[in-house]
Parts: sequence; C-alpha cells; structure tokens
Amino acid sequence: MTEVMTATDGTGLASSYPRVRSLTEELAAPLSGEDQTVQSMPDVSPAKWHRAHTSWFFETFLLTESLGSYAPFDPAYEYLFNSYYEGVGPIYPREQRGLVSRPGIEEIARYRIHVDRAMEQLLTRPLDPRTHELVTLGLHHEQQHQELLLMDIKHVLWHNPVRRSYGNLTEPEPPGTALTPAEWVEHPGGLVEIGHQGPGFSFDNERPRHPVYLQPFALSDRVVTCSEWTSFIEDGGYQRADLWLSDGWAAVRHGRWDAPLYWTWEDGAWQVFTLGGVRPMHPHEPVCHVSYYEADAFARWSGARLPTEHEWEAVHSTGSGATDDTFDLARLHPCPLSPSDSGSVPGSGVWQWTSSSYSPYPGFTIAAGAVGEYNGKFMVNQYVLRGGSCVTPPGHARTTYRNFFPPGARWAFSGLRLARDA
Amino acid sequence: MTEVMTATDGTGLASSYPRVRSLTEELAAPLSGEDQTVQSMPDVSPAKWHRAHTSWFFETFLLTESLGSYAPFDPAYEYLFNSYYEGVGPIYPREQRGLVSRPGIEEIARYRIHVDRAMEQLLTRPLDPRTHELVTLGLHHEQQHQELLLMDIKHVLWHNPVRRSYGNLTEPEPPGTALTPAEWVEHPGGLVEIGHQGPGFSFDNERPRHPVYLQPFALSDRVVTCSEWTSFIEDGGYQRADLWLSDGWAAVRHGRWDAPLYWTWEDGAWQVFTLGGVRPMHPHEPVCHVSYYEADAFARWSGARLPTEHEWEAVHSTGSGATDDTFDLARLHPCPLSPSDSGSVPGSGVWQWTSSSYSPYPGFTIAAGAVGEYNGKFMVNQYVLRGGSCVTPPGHARTTYRNFFPPGARWAFSGLRLARDA
Amino acid sequence: MTEVMTATDGTGLASSYPRVRSLTEELAAPLSGEDQTVQSMPDVSPAKWHRAHTSWFFETFLLTESLGSYAPFDPAYEYLFNSYYEGVGPIYPREQRGLVSRPGIEEIARYRIHVDRAMEQLLTRPLDPRTHELVTLGLHHEQQHQELLLMDIKHVLWHNPVRRSYGNLTEPEPPGTALTPAEWVEHPGGLVEIGHQGPGFSFDNERPRHPVYLQPFALSDRVVTCSEWTSFIEDGGYQRADLWLSDGWAAVRHGRWDAPLYWTWEDGAWQVFTLGGVRPMHPHEPVCHVSYYEADAFARWSGARLPTEHEWEAVHSTGSGATDDTFDLARLHPCPLSPSDSGSVPGSGVWQWTSSSYSPYPGFTIAAGAVGEYNGKFMVNQYVLRGGSCVTPPGHARTTYRNFFPPGARWAFSGLRLARDA
Amino acid sequence: MTEVMTATDGTGLASSYPRVRSLTEELAAPLSGEDQTVQSMPDVSPAKWHRAHTSWFFETFLLTESLGSYAPFDPAYEYLFNSYYEGVGPIYPREQRGLVSRPGIEEIARYRIHVDRAMEQLLTRPLDPRTHELVTLGLHHEQQHQELLLMDIKHVLWHNPVRRSYGNLTEPEPPGTALTPAEWVEHPGGLVEIGHQGPGFSFDNERPRHPVYLQPFALSDRVVTCSEWTSFIEDGGYQRADLWLSDGWAAVRHGRWDAPLYWTWEDGAWQVFTLGGVRPMHPHEPVCHVSYYEADAFARWSGARLPTEHEWEAVHSTGSGATDDTFDLARLHPCPLSPSDSGSVPGSGVWQWTSSSYSPYPGFTIAAGAVGEYNGKFMVNQYVLRGGSCVTPPGHARTTYRNFFPPGARWAFSGLRLARDA
Repeated sequence: MTEVMTATDGTGLASSYPRVRSLTEELAAPLSGEDQTVQSMPDVSPAKWHRAHTSWFFETFLLTESLGSYAPFDPAYEYLFNSYYEGVGPIYPREQRGLVSRPGIEEIARYRIHVDRAMEQLLTRPLDPRTHELVTLGLHHEQQHQELLLMDIKHVLWHNPVRRSYGNLTEPEPPGTALTPAEWVEHPGGLVEIGHQGPGFSFDNERPRHPVYLQPFALSDRVVTCSEWTSFIEDGGYQRADLWLSDGWAAVRHGRWDAPLYWTWEDGAWQVFTLGGVRPMHPHEPVCHVSYYEADAFARWSGARLPTEHEWEAVHSTGSGATDDTFDLARLHPCPLSPSDSGSVPGSGVWQWTSSSYSPYPGFTIAAGAVGEYNGKFMVNQYVLRGGSCVTPPGHARTTYRNFFPPGARWAFSGLRLARDA
Repeated sequence: MTEVMTATDGTGLASSYPRVRSLTEELAAPLSGEDQTVQSMPDVSPAKWHRAHTSWFFETFLLTESLGSYAPFDPAYEYLFNSYYEGVGPIYPREQRGLVSRPGIEEIARYRIHVDRAMEQLLTRPLDPRTHELVTLGLHHEQQHQELLLMDIKHVLWHNPVRRSYGNLTEPEPPGTALTPAEWVEHPGGLVEIGHQGPGFSFDNERPRHPVYLQPFALSDRVVTCSEWTSFIEDGGYQRADLWLSDGWAAVRHGRWDAPLYWTWEDGAWQVFTLGGVRPMHPHEPVCHVSYYEADAFARWSGARLPTEHEWEAVHSTGSGATDDTFDLARLHPCPLSPSDSGSVPGSGVWQWTSSSYSPYPGFTIAAGAVGEYNGKFMVNQYVLRGGSCVTPPGHARTTYRNFFPPGARWAFSGLRLARDA
Repeated sequence: MTEVMTATDGTGLASSYPRVRSLTEELAAPLSGEDQTVQSMPDVSPAKWHRAHTSWFFETFLLTESLGSYAPFDPAYEYLFNSYYEGVGPIYPREQRGLVSRPGIEEIARYRIHVDRAMEQLLTRPLDPRTHELVTLGLHHEQQHQELLLMDIKHVLWHNPVRRSYGNLTEPEPPGTALTPAEWVEHPGGLVEIGHQGPGFSFDNERPRHPVYLQPFALSDRVVTCSEWTSFIEDGGYQRADLWLSDGWAAVRHGRWDAPLYWTWEDGAWQVFTLGGVRPMHPHEPVCHVSYYEADAFARWSGARLPTEHEWEAVHSTGSGATDDTFDLARLHPCPLSPSDSGSVPGSGVWQWTSSSYSPYPGFTIAAGAVGEYNGKFMVNQYVLRGGSCVTPPGHARTTYRNFFPPGARWAFSGLRLARDA
Repeated sequence: MTEVMTATDGTGLASSYPRVRSLTEELAAPLSGEDQTVQSMPDVSPAKWHRAHTSWFFETFLLTESLGSYAPFDPAYEYLFNSYYEGVGPIYPREQRGLVSRPGIEEIARYRIHVDRAMEQLLTRPLDPRTHELVTLGLHHEQQHQELLLMDIKHVLWHNPVRRSYGNLTEPEPPGTALTPAEWVEHPGGLVEIGHQGPGFSFDNERPRHPVYLQPFALSDRVVTCSEWTSFIEDGGYQRADLWLSDGWAAVRHGRWDAPLYWTWEDGAWQVFTLGGVRPMHPHEPVCHVSYYEADAFARWSGARLPTEHEWEAVHSTGSGATDDTFDLARLHPCPLSPSDSGSVPGSGVWQWTSSSYSPYPGFTIAAGAVGEYNGKFMVNQYVLRGGSCVTPPGHARTTYRNFFPPGARWAFSGLRLARDA
C-alpha cells in the first residue's frame, strides 16, 4: 500500500482512497451505536467521532476548497467534528465528545458516503501537487485514527463491568518454542543521518533529515517481555521510589499503579485484557500498555536505560541487528487488522518508548494555514515512541516515524526496548 | 389509575402492572441506542439505565424472593443496575453510568420482557400483603423513573450542539386570553393535620399524619410566570447579592447563572428549550427549571417568601383556593404524556419549591431491609417540592406527595408559588 | 456578664466593652505571629484575622457612621477584613486568608487599640437605641469569634506534625466516680413556645417567639460519652452503610473517617488531641468533634434519634430534667476560658446536634443594611446545634441560642444528646 | 567566590561556609515570622522552610554520618524539612509547608546555629574527598535556595493585597541612553563540546562533557525587552491561538494570562511588581517572569525561535558575541544581592528559556545514596534555562549551568533570547 499512497497521480489515490476509507468502516462494524458513543476518559474519542472527524478532514481541507460544487453534509459538523484546528473556527470541547448522541451511527454512515462520493469526483481529475499532498495526508491521518479507534474502544470496553469483547476475533496460537535471551546490538556512534528523505510520504515532523552525533551504545535486539516485567513487579518495582522519576512516582501513587494497564491478578495469575476479552498473560509476549514513567523505571531497574529516538533510528535504518525475535508474539493480541507489513515496519507489536522529548528537528517548519496545526503545536510535554504496533494499519509506519504521547499515557499499545552505553 | 394501583387484590395489579410498564417503553421508543446511553452529568442517568433499573427493582425485591422458579436474566445486572441500595450489595458507580455501552437497548428490551413474564406469573397468584405492597411500590417507583427519564433526556439533548428534539411532539396552542393577576389565598393558621392517611397508596415519607401549628399566612393562587421572572432578571436579580442566600450567591457566580436553565437569549428575545426543541418563551407559562436558590431569591425580591410544605399542603388539602389558573399554560410544554389527572394532582405544570428542608415526619420509621433505603437516607441537604409537573405520570402525585432535590438542582421541572405572612 | 451586656444605657457597655475585647487578646497572647497567620482549611481563619475582623465590625458598622471624627486605621482593611458582608463592598477571598503575612500581629494590636480608643469615646456619650443595639451586637459577635479562634487554632495545631500545644494550660483532674446510666426525660408534647422574648439580648435568628406543636417524646438527661462512642466504633459503626444518611456515607468514605476528629489510635488505646496536646481519651467525657452525619448514624445505631431543636428547647426551657451529669467531665478539655456560667447555659461542654435544618422562624425578618447579612443568608444547608461548649465564652449562650454548621463539619466542639418518640 | 568553593582543602570551605550561610540569614532578616510562614502556592516554600531545609541538608548528609558526636537538633526535623529525598525517609507533604507555624523563626535561627557550630567543628579537620564534595554541594545547594527564597517571597508578597515591599531596597537609576537594536551573532555549527569539565565545581547534570553536532544558526546578542513584549501584547499575542503550543494555549485560557506575571495595567500604563514594590515598567529592561509557553509564542510571533541549550552554550562558551547589552538594565530590579560576577556568569538579569527538554547528557550517572536524588529524578516534563538572574547569588552560575522549570512556571526570574536558523 505504501507505494500506492505516494504515487503522484490521481490514479494511485483513486485506488488507495476507498481502500483506506473502507477499513475504517470495517473496524467500526462490530460496534453498536452505544459502543460508538461512549467516551471513557477525555483522551478517548467515541468510535463514531473518529468516523466523522476523518471525513471532516477531507471536507474541510479539500472539498470545500477544491470542489466548487460541494455542499457540506451538515453545517454544524464543522464545529462538532473539528478536533483541534483553531484556525478553522470554534471547537466542540474534547472532553464532551461522549455527550453527543446525535448524529447517530446511521447518519455518520451517510456522512461518510456523502464525502466519499465527492472525493471520488475530485480524484477523477488531474490533481495539482498541493491537492495531491492533502489527500495523501488525509489518508495517513485516517490511518492514525484507525489505530486510535482500536485503542479507544479497548479502553471503553475495559471500563464496562459486564462484557468486554470487541467482536469475533480469532485467538492466535501461542508459539510453542522458548524465547532466546535478548542480545545487545552494538553501534559505534559517530555522525548519523536522522529523519526522512523522499521519495515516499512522511509527516512533517520526520523532516528535515539532518546529522546527529552519537556516542557508542548498544540496543537490545528485542522488546521487553511480560515475564521480564513480572520480575520487575516481584522485585517491588512499583514500591521502590528510587527507581522512578519524581513525576513518575507521583503517578504511581496517584493512579495506584501496580502493573501495566489491562493487567488483572485473578486466581493466582496475571490476566491481560485484549480486544478479544480477558485471557492469561503469556510470558513471552511483549509487555504493552506501560507509560513512559514505567518504561523508564523498568530500564533503571534493569541497569539499562531507554534509547534516544536517534539511537533507535540509527540501528533500525541500517538493519544492523534489531531483529525483533518477539515479533510473532505480538500476534498474540487478537486484532481485526491483518499483520503489518514487516518489510516496512520495524515491528514488534508494540510502540517503543524513547527517552527523547518530542521536539522539532533542526530546520523544521510548519505548513501554512490550519493544516499546519497537525504536528508542531504538540511538541511539548510528550515523549517519542518508535516502531509500530499490532493495531497500526499495515503500511502506515516506517523507520523514521515519530509517534508521541505524554509520559503518563498508558492506553496506547506501548512497550519498550532497552539500551545502554557501550 | 390511582384507584387501580391501590386495590388490595392481585386483579388490580395485574391490570396496572402492564399499563405502567408499557408506558416506560413508550417513552423510550423515540430514542436511539445512542440517545439512551449518554449521561450528561452525574445526576442524570441514561434512558436505558432507567429501563433496566426499574426492572431490577422487581427482580431484586420480588422475583428472586417470591418466585421460586425465577432465574435472573444476567447475574451481572444485580451490580450494574443497583441504584443506591447498599443492603443489596456493591453498587456500580453512579457517575459512570454513561460508560456502559453494553448491554445495548435490544438486550434491555429482552430483560424487561423476561422480568414482565415472571411478574405476570407472580400476579396471577393470590398475593400476601407484603408482596402486594412491594409490587405497588415497584409501580410507583417506575412512575418516578418515567419522570426522571424525561428530565434526564431533556438534559442530554440540551447538551448536544446539533439537534435537540426528543421526537414527534405536538406543539400546543398558546392560549389567546390574558392572564389575570395573582390573588392571595388567606389561611387562618392554627393546628392542621399534615401527611397521608389511607386508604390509597402513599410513600413512607408522607406518613404518619400528624398535627402542625401554623401562623396565619397567605398563598398565591397561582405559580410564578415567565413574564414575572423576566422582570426579576431585568431588575438585576442575578447581579444583586443582597437577594440571595450565601450558598445561592456562590452558585450564581460559579455556574454563571443569569436565567433559568434552558433559557437562551437569541435575537433580542428569550427562547426556551423544551422536549420539542427551542421555541420563544411564552410570557404566561409557569417559570420552570429554577433552583431553590433562585426561587428563594425571587421570593425575596418580590417582598414575599416561599411557603413551608405544611402551608402548601394545608391550603391544597382543603381546596380553599389555590386554583392554578396557570394550569393550562403548563401544557405549553410539549410532552409525550397525556395531561395529568387534575382531579388528584394540584397541578400547575411545575413542581413548587417550598422552604422546608426534607426531613422525617414525627414518628417516621424506615422499613426493614434494603427497600428501607428508599426514602429515609436522603433526608438531608434537600428541599421539598410539592404539586407535580407536566412530566409527572397521570395519577402519580397527590396533595401529600413530597418530592425533593438539593437546593442547586435545576433539571427538574421546578417552579414556585409565593407565600407571605398574614 | 449577661446582664451587663443587655443594659440599655452606655454605662453597662462601657464596662462590658473592654472586658470582652481584652479577652480576645488574652486568648491570642500565647500564639506567635506564625501561629496567628496559618489557615489549615478554608473554613478556618487565622487568629490574627479574628482579631482584626472583630475590630473591623466596630469600625464599619459604628465608628465610620456614628463617630464623625473617626479616621479608619488603614483604608485597605475595609476590603481585607470583611468576612462576608456583600453590602459593604468587595470581599477578600476567604480561602486565601492564610496568604496574608502583613499586617503582622503588632500592627493588628495597634489596630485594635485604635478602634478601642474611638469606641471608648463613643461609649462615653448617650447612645441612641440603634447604636446601643449595634455595640451590643458587636460584643456578642466578638464572643462568637473568640470561640472560633479557639476552634480554629486547635485545627491549625493539629495539622502541625511537630508540636501541638496551644500554651500553658492546666490539665484538669478526671473525676474518680463512675458515670450513672443515662435516663430519659419525658415530655408530653403539645403546644410549646419556642424562641427568645426579652428583655435580654438575643440574635435575630432566635426570634420571634412562636408556638410549635410537639408529639410526646423523651430526651436523654446527658450527652453521649466517649465510651459509648467506642462501642459504636467497635460494632462497625463506620463500616455499616445502613446506619448512615446517603451523604453521610459518602463523607465517611471520602474522608476515610473511622473515629471523631482529633482521635488517634496509639499503642492500643484511643488518644484525643486537646488544646493542651495529646492525652488518653477518658471514657466518661462527652464525645466531641463529631459531624451531624456521625451524630445521626450513632443515634440510629442506638435505636434512638436526634432531637429537633424545638424538643431540645422545650425541655431545657422548663428545667424539667436535662440535668447534664456530664457537665463536669467537659472540663477535662483544658481551656483558656474559665468555666461557663452554668446558671444561664445548659451546658455539657459540647454543642449538641439537632435534627433541625437551620431555617427562619415564622415571621423572621432581616435587619436593613449590610448588618442584616448577619444570620439570614446562611439559612440553608446547615443544621442547628444547641447548648454551648467548653470554649463558648461565659455568658454568651442561652437556652434559645441557635448555633449552626454544615452537616459534614467536625472542627466545632460538637457532640450529641439522644431523643426518642414517647 | 568560585575558586574558594572549589578548593580541595578544608581551609577554603572553612571560609566559604560561613559566608554562604550568613547570606541566607541576611536575606531572611527583613522578613517577619508571618512573612516567613506563608506558602502562596504549592511550588512556593516559606522562607523559614528554606532556612531550615538548607541546614537539614548538612545535618542529614554530613553531620549524622561524619561527625560521631553530633546530636540532631530535633529528631522531628528529619521528616519536616526533607524536601524530596525518598531515600532518607517519609517526607512532609510539600503543599502543606504553609501549615507549619511551629517551629517559629527564633527556633529556626537556633537550629541554624546548632548546625553551623557542628559544621565548623567538622571543617577544622582534614576532609576526605567525599566529605569535601558533599560540603561543597551543600553550599551550592544553599545558594540555589537563596534564589528560591527570593523568588518565593516575591510571590508571597504579590498575593498580599495590602503591602508589597520586601524591605528597604534601593531603587536603581534607569539608564539614560537608548537601547541599540539587537544583532544576530552567527555560529557556523558543526561539532561542539557541551558540558562542564573540571577543575571547578559543577552539578552532576552538567556532565559529562560530550560532542554535539549543530546546524548553522544565529543567536541574538541580547535578551528580549519589555518594550518588545508590549508589541507582542498589542499585536494580540495573547489572543492568537496560532502562535501557541497547544498546551500553552490551554494555559493562557485557564490562567487568563494577558501579560507576564507581576505586570498590572494601571492608569494607562504597565506597572511591574518587584521586590521593592510596584513601579512603572521600563521599556528597556529585560522581560521577566514569562513561562516557556510565552517565550515560545513570542519567538514564533517574531519569526524566530528559542535556542537549544547546546546552541546557547556553544555561543557563550566561546565568548563569540552574546554581549548582553541589557545586562545593566537587569539592575533595575531592586535586589538584596550585590550584582553578579559578570566575569563568570553570562548574565542579563534573567534566566533564558531554551527549547531543550531537561534530559541527561550521554553517559550521565546518578550518585549512590539519597543524595543521588538531587537532579536526575527531575529529568522529565521540564525545560532548560541558561544564564543566571539578578537574584542568583554571585559566583553561583556558570556557562554550563542548567537551570530547569516546567513549561508553565512563571515565578522564576525567567526571560528569553531569540535564535534562528542561519
């Protein structure tokens, strides 16, 4: 899919547009109107909101500007489904998205069809580069919301005391073989090139490509597993202040954390909640749903540290070793998506926290207009994650991709890989 | 309906049970699954929760005890749909009712049918007095939730920036005639009997009947109208601290109140939001959706005061005057209910705040068991309202009926009637 | 003292004014500048604020109006030391009183002298009735703040982890004799007169005197003791939801209450914190520092109830039995005040919660002007306490006196006396 | 002073110890017991707490370990004056420091003398390197608290509506000459060495020295002035969402920011509050008391950006141009400190925000034991400031010094210097 979405004529987009759009509807299909309406915390958005907002993106940034004949589906949507673009106009409060019972899911479905018909019309024409770029951006944007939709509905279902399954998902077979010990992949340091450089698509925050000087270091060849995490727990990891950043220790006490999110202790064993429901934790699966604070504390406990995002990228861009033996284990998470394209995604089933604060690359510039609010304005109080996860749409991520969340967030599919000084 | 529901044999209940139960479903029918799931504030419950909880009441207090063969529809419901009965067991947190996407509305419908079939079976048998009393209580309980369902969905729809109509409601014709000035109905005071005395049904909080000594006083013959309220607004009522109780003034500032709930100022005129949507305020309709604080401040501004609940009952039980000329104006609120039975309800379309704190009558006793938690444990921090409203089910209220809300609550259909010392 | 303060000529006031004013300074004398500055919760005021505010009362309501030559000590004080009189002007936020380091205690002392000199001048003249009334009110007002100062500094010292003694107080000798069981004092009910009627001083909220009809009832002849309270604790009183009002149970869980305020469990025994520091709880002393919620739950657990304020007054005004055997035990609380005048105060060392919401008596009217904000605007969300406490200044309280606090408040010297239906 | 404090024999410390310690007492001298007790927000500590905590540092990390005969002044202080060292034991809650009326300031003075006498004894002996290092650290620690004491008392006095002057401070003479326009100092980029390398003292967070690769850039030769800031304000800087980071914009709205902290608009002109009281803003003085969010928004509005901490250090360590013409203007802030040693401090009177998140340098290691909690555990959610301020004690800061605060903090003496890509 990657190559299709970066084609520079409308033909490629005419093909990738319906494919990306229909996946959103497939992901929402097992969810009732009630499921798609609930917001379990301010960071979570209802599934129907994701469906509407991704359509709003095409309507706002493309159709009303580039398609003269276009009539908005409902003028109120401009306000209701604006996520955070101050330049577009007033924004319905994020934390109240769960109060919107109407429009219901049938109306949202009609909205999507309305937008899709107009977009199909637009895509039959020759596209100027700016339009082509915006459509491509809109599709990558929609893929991001596909992952968010799955993260969010998992959180919604988790908060329901009664039933907890997203839908009919196949429970994968755990592997029979033992896990080999993690190995350190050495890197000599020195000047490396970081960031994306054409021809394919990248977000603005991955550019410009620039040199960074690294000290020699080593990176683990796989992510941390659940059995390793239970050793941390059993060694009092959540009770020892000396392992934690000061803000992290406050989060542990305030949130009464004693294990990753979605772990429960039942009948003498750890259970994990997945989109398929509750099942026993598998010791070899990557630990998932840990915050930056937890990842940092675990690394300190291990006598290691988290890698910087530069270190992570330096190793992964050369293919010099991070072999992701645990990759298949990530498939233990039942998921409505087919497995990621491991050729393009350095995958392990979980996003990997880095010690890098999310900040602009040297020479970073923000696009003109409201669409420029896409990335730059979030470059504070967040930490970068690299890799991709089992709920990242196939073909979406890449080696230079920069995901980011606040250090206390746990509802993303986030794990970690250790690093150390050489 | 009143007489049917107080008959002492099962025949009457066999007839009133399905009538009351089906009204709940009629009220919910225009609402989608999304509508029935949203909780717009902690005090509000989702419509589907009301449908389930009223069934839970019969299941918990009658079927599991009195019908040997009864199998609960879903064991998890005991926890999920318990409102506040600590004696029954753990209670799902009230403020999280809006997080429950499943069970959905179809499953709730099946739950109601499951309970109804079992109740029909129970009601064909001769009932012992305790069972009869509990079924009757369950039906009055369900009527209370019918009113709550309408209050709550109005609040939900109000918080939706897009569409605001409950369903297809007929907009009533405003009356063409002018409103006559309010008259004072004098009462000589002295010892009066307050409270309910058989044979019909009453809640425990209306009993026992007991003497109260009153000073001479006068009560207005109708409730306060919207045009009177606009005079209060225009005279700076919401800006003058001297008119308000201290806690009331804090509520004005904290909530930025400048008019009753559901009033908006648009294009130079007040609009009111009803279940039928937004329409111009009619000057003669009773003011509605005001808090105790506002009612008290308005009374002080008028040189009058609120009546005590004893004064209110003394006047209304003798039929000595409170003639409710505004009664028909209450019908300006489009409502899915047919008009109240004005023979039994001293109606004016709005509940009327009294200055009486909600407290037990002398000799009040609490029923044994969890059902005893029905009323007594709320007798603090609340004020009594009397009368009934346009969303009170027909036959539900009576002269001795004691409704109650905290003094800052505004989402009930609450207005006021003035009183003064003689 | 009582008679002096109600004399209608200036001579009496000229004598009582300095006596009341100097007691305030005596109470503050053991407290350092630091002690007098801290505010341990929004309800608490710093000691130096009490000293200033009581002076502000005389300055604002008397000197600036009645003494032509008077120059305010500092114009900023009008704002800074206004407690809650909206009619006077803007009010410095209550919850920020602990942020005011300046003026310091020496300046407050000079402020008091400045006001006292002017008041002495005023009191040498013949006083018109209104002025006489306001001076008298100002002295009773200051006595209320003397009690508040002691309540508040106790709370401040309690929150200090290091040292906890108010000053050099004599620890009273506990009585050697056993406590006789409580007896019920019967009252036949019927019409009783409630409220104050001349000639002495009373607050506006005690008037007008009016008839109330009572059912027959009985009142305990003494207040509840600490040993009785420990039985409640040991019987799971703080763990049983069925004993509590709904809001009370929420307060128990939110505040993690498991004993009265100022009780600690150390080395296998209950300790109580007094103004003299921490000492073992004496089983016969009246239980103190309990909220309305706790008093109500204890009464329910006892198979009794709280009295109404009418019942309490009816018994105490006739001298028909509430003999307060525990009175002397109240003296176990070391206190800088000399014992109350038991001739005028129906004392037991603790204020006694009643089940009566604080509301106006029939015919109650509010005084004109800002001084009218004294009592009336607090008549909501509070419950009445009767009696007096070991920190009530001698001569201040009386049988008709109505103290009031919100139902969750515990820092007043509040206990309870049981009642029951006859 | 710098060289003295880094001498490796006890002689130097024996001389610098009393000098540093006595400055703390000089700074506290104009403050009353009340002034030294108030805590105006959780981030602020009372002045007497600073005096005690700096003594606690010597007591805890040196005297109880290295001086066998030492008896702690009061065992309770270990808990009460521990700031955040979890390894030492339980910590009195930071946000409750303003509740501690006792110990009072006289007792704190005795505590300091007690510690000083023991330290003098210790310093007469030959010191092993570890002890020498800890004493030196304790002195630099005390200097940091001297700056905090002044920051904090400014905030305390600001919140007092009545009087606002720290003490008798000389109001500096504003310069008569005009300000020359800012010039850009170019830097060619490339590999630069960042961080401290002996022989003098540095904090662990300044080490190890390591290479960083920079792109070519330019740095302004002076900090931003108040007149430049007013242009930002007048251009709607605080009303334009497009200029702000998303979290910054939320802070603007939540805090209702419309100017730097301590600015007020009176009589048609900006006034600034200094330790000397309120005076007119001088257009050429460096803008001060702005948050990272504001600094970032101003830079964006200017078409520039903030420098990274590496860029800042690269320019300042070479002496290649950042000439700080505004340095003397910083002296417009009346201050109890004598001017900083401009030979060692790259001063401009204000700390300068950089765009660098506070994170460990490559190879950073944390010291063993509780003293290791000094810096490392705060390396999250904070941004680095460089330079020094008019309340930084002389000789304390240096070119490699890394100060840090959360991006919303405004009570530090924080300003900014602009940068841009070359």
